[in-house]
Amino acid sequence: MALLSVLTPVLAVILCLVLGFMLVKSRETPSTTVEKPAGASKADFRPWVDQDLQDDTDTTARQDEDDGDWVDGNEEEEELPHVPYSPTRYPEEAMLQRSQEFYTVLNQRRSVRFISPEPVPREVIDNVIRTAGTAPSGAHTEPWTFVVVSDPKMKHQIRLVVEEEEEVNYRQRMGDKWVNDLAPLRTNWIKEYLDVAPYLLLIFKQTYGMLPNGKKRTHYYNEISVSISCGILLAALQNVGLVTVTSTPLNCGPQLRLLLKRPANEKLLMLLPVGYPAADATVPDLKRKPLDDIIAHI
Amino acid sequence: MALLSVLTPVLAVILCLVLGFMLVKSRETPSTTVEKPAGASKADFRPWVDQDLQDDTDTTARQDEDDGDWVDGNEEEEELPHVPYSPTRYPEEAMLQRSQEFYTVLNQRRSVRFISPEPVPREVIDNVIRTAGTAPSGAHTEPWTFVVVSDPKMKHQIRLVVEEEEEVNYRQRMGDKWVNDLAPLRTNWIKEYLDVAPYLLLIFKQTYGMLPNGKKRTHYYNEISVSISCGILLAALQNVGLVTVTSTPLNCGPQLRLLLKRPANEKLLMLLPVGYPAADATVPDLKRKPLDDIIAHI
Repeated sequence: MALLSVLTPVLAVILCLVLGFMLVKSRETPSTTVEKPAGASKADFRPWVDQDLQDDTDTTARQDEDDGDWVDGNEEEEELPHVPYSPTRYPEEAMLQRSQEFYTVLNQRRSVRFISPEPVPREVIDNVIRTAGTAPSGAHTEPWTFVVVSDPKMKHQIRLVVEEEEEVNYRQRMGDKWVNDLAPLRTNWIKEYLDVAPYLLLIFKQTYGMLPNGKKRTHYYNEISVSISCGILLAALQNVGLVTVTSTPLNCGPQLRLLLKRPANEKLLMLLPVGYPAADATVPDLKRKPLDDIIAHI
Repeated sequence: MALLSVLTPVLAVILCLVLGFMLVKSRETPSTTVEKPAGASKADFRPWVDQDLQDDTDTTARQDEDDGDWVDGNEEEEELPHVPYSPTRYPEEAMLQRSQEFYTVLNQRRSVRFISPEPVPREVIDNVIRTAGTAPSGAHTEPWTFVVVSDPKMKHQIRLVVEEEEEVNYRQRMGDKWVNDLAPLRTNWIKEYLDVAPYLLLIFKQTYGMLPNGKKRTHYYNEISVSISCGILLAALQNVGLVTVTSTPLNCGPQLRLLLKRPANEKLLMLLPVGYPAADATVPDLKRKPLDDIIAHI
């Protein structure tokens, strides 16, 4: 009995520790349940979206905050001088004609998966990218890098990375739904054009930038800005008679970034093979929505 | 002593409960640190990003899953016929010249906040939007709606919504950092151009679509697709000598959607005031990055 009485506190302590441990575990579990679906949903319900494509201004901002690396903006506080702006003005007739002609040119654009190996002058590609670089961007951060790959070995390495991931996507991740949606386009994981096209353009969004003093600068709206820039790039390509197919390779971003030796602040947004269309190129017989379906006048 | 001996287990229990409670709290704290910023960061660190702008394919997909509303894709399973594609081909000289000329035109584009009230032919605007509608989109979903507002009362109502929210953004949400970054652009919450410009274009992304049978169709990559379309739209505007300023009004999306009576699957991505530049328009004397800073050849 004396022994029992001595042991009681010890037993009580053990009991309490067990209870405390169970309490801790029970607290952990709901938190895991809440978090997992957020992560799991990307794998289960949304496998076709490259997680690398998410705009991570959020993550970056938090990281900056943690690092105490926030730029205080003083370097840029001085106001830029304003200058008069008077661009070319066209008479109404000319405007109408130009708007019609531009539409006619761009309406011929199609996503083309059959690209000719014929060489394309590099200066044309440079001008196209120069043009893409005129896009607006959040707070004028110009958060884009255009990597132009013409080296056959590098093109082939890119192809290997993309095809490996795409095959997994098609076979496992995408699910019947997305594969069926793509069926009319006859697309699959074999991307011959990655070897054949004279150029591969890999467009990276810079999620943050570096100031001359080595501090980070957040790039607001970097994904939207770079996508706008890509729209202008597509228009510039079409304007010179070159073709491409807009692709956002699933889950290949990190591998391709390392392969191309791009810095950690850059994330792959798009991969565009560029060249002349092959002589026997075909495209699916898709129609575009009529104007009335995409416009509303108020 | 007997009392003490009786109380010892009680004291031990109390001590254990206190320790257990502290353990639970200490477990909670890191979990709060990890989780809260994800939620709080939107309010604290990332106030300048309109939450409405997030690509919510995720949410939609999950919702569809819950509703059991997944389209099985059978309606579209039949393959579209392929047709030959042979667009205009230019000799190298012509390509070079066209690429240079297009760059020259687009390089004159600037974000202009001083817009003339002069009327602009509606047919030009229609052609510009027709052109934007030629953009590629994920699985050819064409997930865009262009709302063209020329009614002065509606323009003013839009201005009231935007200015009210923008003032709150400037005063409270944005923080010194972002306000300082914008200082060189001399931008603030007074948006006179929303009354003055002959047209306001409000561009909505459709996060999902409706099939003829009433089922939902997920719009993959809708935000990137609509942003690409906006890039083409900006090029088309510049091509006819019209100006705009790219804006993504913070937190106004839901209000403006209701004001414009847009359906629930549409989310505001951009608001563009469009017109001729005012006679005394000025722009900040910004420079663009040189080509070497945005391109890498491999």
